Amino acid sequence: MNFNFINWVEYIGTFAFAISGVRMAAQQRFDWFGAYVVGFITAVGGGTIRDLLLDLPPFWMNTGSYLLCTAAAFLCVIVFKKQIEKVSRTIFIFDTIGLCLFVVVGIEKTLELNLYPFWLAIIMGSITGAAGGILRDVLLNIEPLIFRKEIYASACVIGGIVYWLCSIAGLNTMLTQTLTATCIFAIRFFAVKYKIGLPLMKN
Amino acid sequence: MNFNFINWVEYIGTFAFAISGVRMAAQQRFDWFGAYVVGFITAVGGGTIRDLLLDLPPFWMNTGSYLLCTAAAFLCVIVFKKQIEKVSRTIFIFDTIGLCLFVVVGIEKTLELNLYPFWLAIIMGSITGAAGGILRDVLLNIEPLIFRKEIYASACVIGGIVYWLCSIAGLNTMLTQTLTATCIFAIRFFAVKYKIGLPLMKN
Amino acid sequence: MNFNFINWVEYIGTFAFAISGVRMAAQQRFDWFGAYVVGFITAVGGGTIRDLLLDLPPFWMNTGSYLLCTAAAFLCVIVFKKQIEKVSRTIFIFDTIGLCLFVVVGIEKTLELNLYPFWLAIIMGSITGAAGGILRDVLLNIEPLIFRKEIYASACVIGGIVYWLCSIAGLNTMLTQTLTATCIFAIRFFAVKYKIGLPLMKN
Repeated sequence: MNFNFINWVEYIGTFAFAISGVRMAAQQRFDWFGAYVVGFITAVGGGTIRDLLLDLPPFWMNTGSYLLCTAAAFLCVIVFKKQIEKVSRTIFIFDTIGLCLFVVVGIEKTLELNLYPFWLAIIMGSITGAAGGILRDVLLNIEPLIFRKEIYASACVIGGIVYWLCSIAGLNTMLTQTLTATCIFAIRFFAVKYKIGLPLMKN
Repeated sequence: MNFNFINWVEYIGTFAFAISGVRMAAQQRFDWFGAYVVGFITAVGGGTIRDLLLDLPPFWMNTGSYLLCTAAAFLCVIVFKKQIEKVSRTIFIFDTIGLCLFVVVGIEKTLELNLYPFWLAIIMGSITGAAGGILRDVLLNIEPLIFRKEIYASACVIGGIVYWLCSIAGLNTMLTQTLTATCIFAIRFFAVKYKIGLPLMKN
Repeated sequence: MNFNFINWVEYIGTFAFAISGVRMAAQQRFDWFGAYVVGFITAVGGGTIRDLLLDLPPFWMNTGSYLLCTAAAFLCVIVFKKQIEKVSRTIFIFDTIGLCLFVVVGIEKTLELNLYPFWLAIIMGSITGAAGGILRDVLLNIEPLIFRKEIYASACVIGGIVYWLCSIAGLNTMLTQTLTATCIFAIRFFAVKYKIGLPLMKN
């Protein structure tokens, strides 16, 4: 993957994550500003927690692109309200692509530091992919969805393990990234399609 | 504004923010310690998130003043419970003054670093002013008020834009600060007086 | 206390904190992955917030021990579900021992930096002990328990004050640690035994 391609996919992921935040804020009847903020935090929250834990400057603070992606998502939800319901399948695909790429970015940012063991990179990849949705649910005052429905965060962890196995096997970066992303995409896609979830805890 | 004046206004703002935190904790029947903690987090939470994002040491960690302001607010709520209802208009004025100054402080702390674009300073000013209230509502397990009622966080953003326009126009610091604060104060004051809010999202 | 002894007690504390997180997640019918994550955040959340505020690398990022302690706690809850109810008294003892040691560790990590006043070390000790439980309750979307029931966070603060008085009195480290831990343990133990709580706020 060349640099521009990753950037584009990352913006698409940000856009799709922001759509999910704005739509859920709309369901709770937030005002426009609140919906925008929830969309933004859904999109950049995971990467921000990762960067704080790794003591890096949060990635969105030096470019306005993520604010603009969120603004585009916000406008889409306002303007194309009805149509968006119909393309929710497309949005799900974008969202899942975003998830795949966020995990890969999180893993690579951690490995580049040369400070931490591989299992931490897997955790950081999963935080990048999944923590934004947790923050969204905390702000909306609902129980975090990703802990109860369909496989989501665990797909990130499995993707991280695939990345690790590829590295051990000595595959090149592009192949490793592609295999990781494909694996996460496939797990998430089939989990949603066939409503597969992890076992629930018994009380 | 000279240094001592800003300090005094900042303590008044901290006091007013803490009052709002302690009173809302009382409504949820928290215990004394819990109410104090919620008051403190309401008062310093926004600035703390700002400092973590900017990689600065959190501002309240080197002086006990903010703990003492919160203690004073806590005692006032306990001792003057009945009277406080009657001066709630005065407390609203303090709270709004605190908001104005917190936004100005947040903008200037960011600009001083010479690392970030102006739009980030506006965001940091808004986080300084508004994020403490969000943390308060998350701890109280209610939906963040600022996303649903009256203009609050958006007043911070507009104030930040005023600050930016003043800088472009080359006004001196004191005038810039005064105009920014006046603008935020006016928006918030009239929004509450005439119950003006942003449009709500449609579900 | 020698180094290995502290480490062992710390792992026991982590284990007990994780048990409480996993069990409460089970009560909300989270899935397995969600319960594990909640357990982990309950155990390491307080120390992580402390390290972020002090600008230190989060303590769990360089050793897998805390992940493994949480995994052990998770397996225990799954496998020994019924028996765990019967030993809940033992788990309470572990949990309280963990609390004592977390507070001592938090105080000492802060003092070692030689950057901050003593009252901040007391706050950091209390955050280390109590903030994990707050994060747990936020994720479970319930009101933070420690703000409403029995003495918990306030025991941490009193323990911190004991540590401070011992330092002033010139006691050696081991005696200071022991007295602090004993004091926290005793307050918590008798508060739970006799259902002693702080006064609640009046609305």
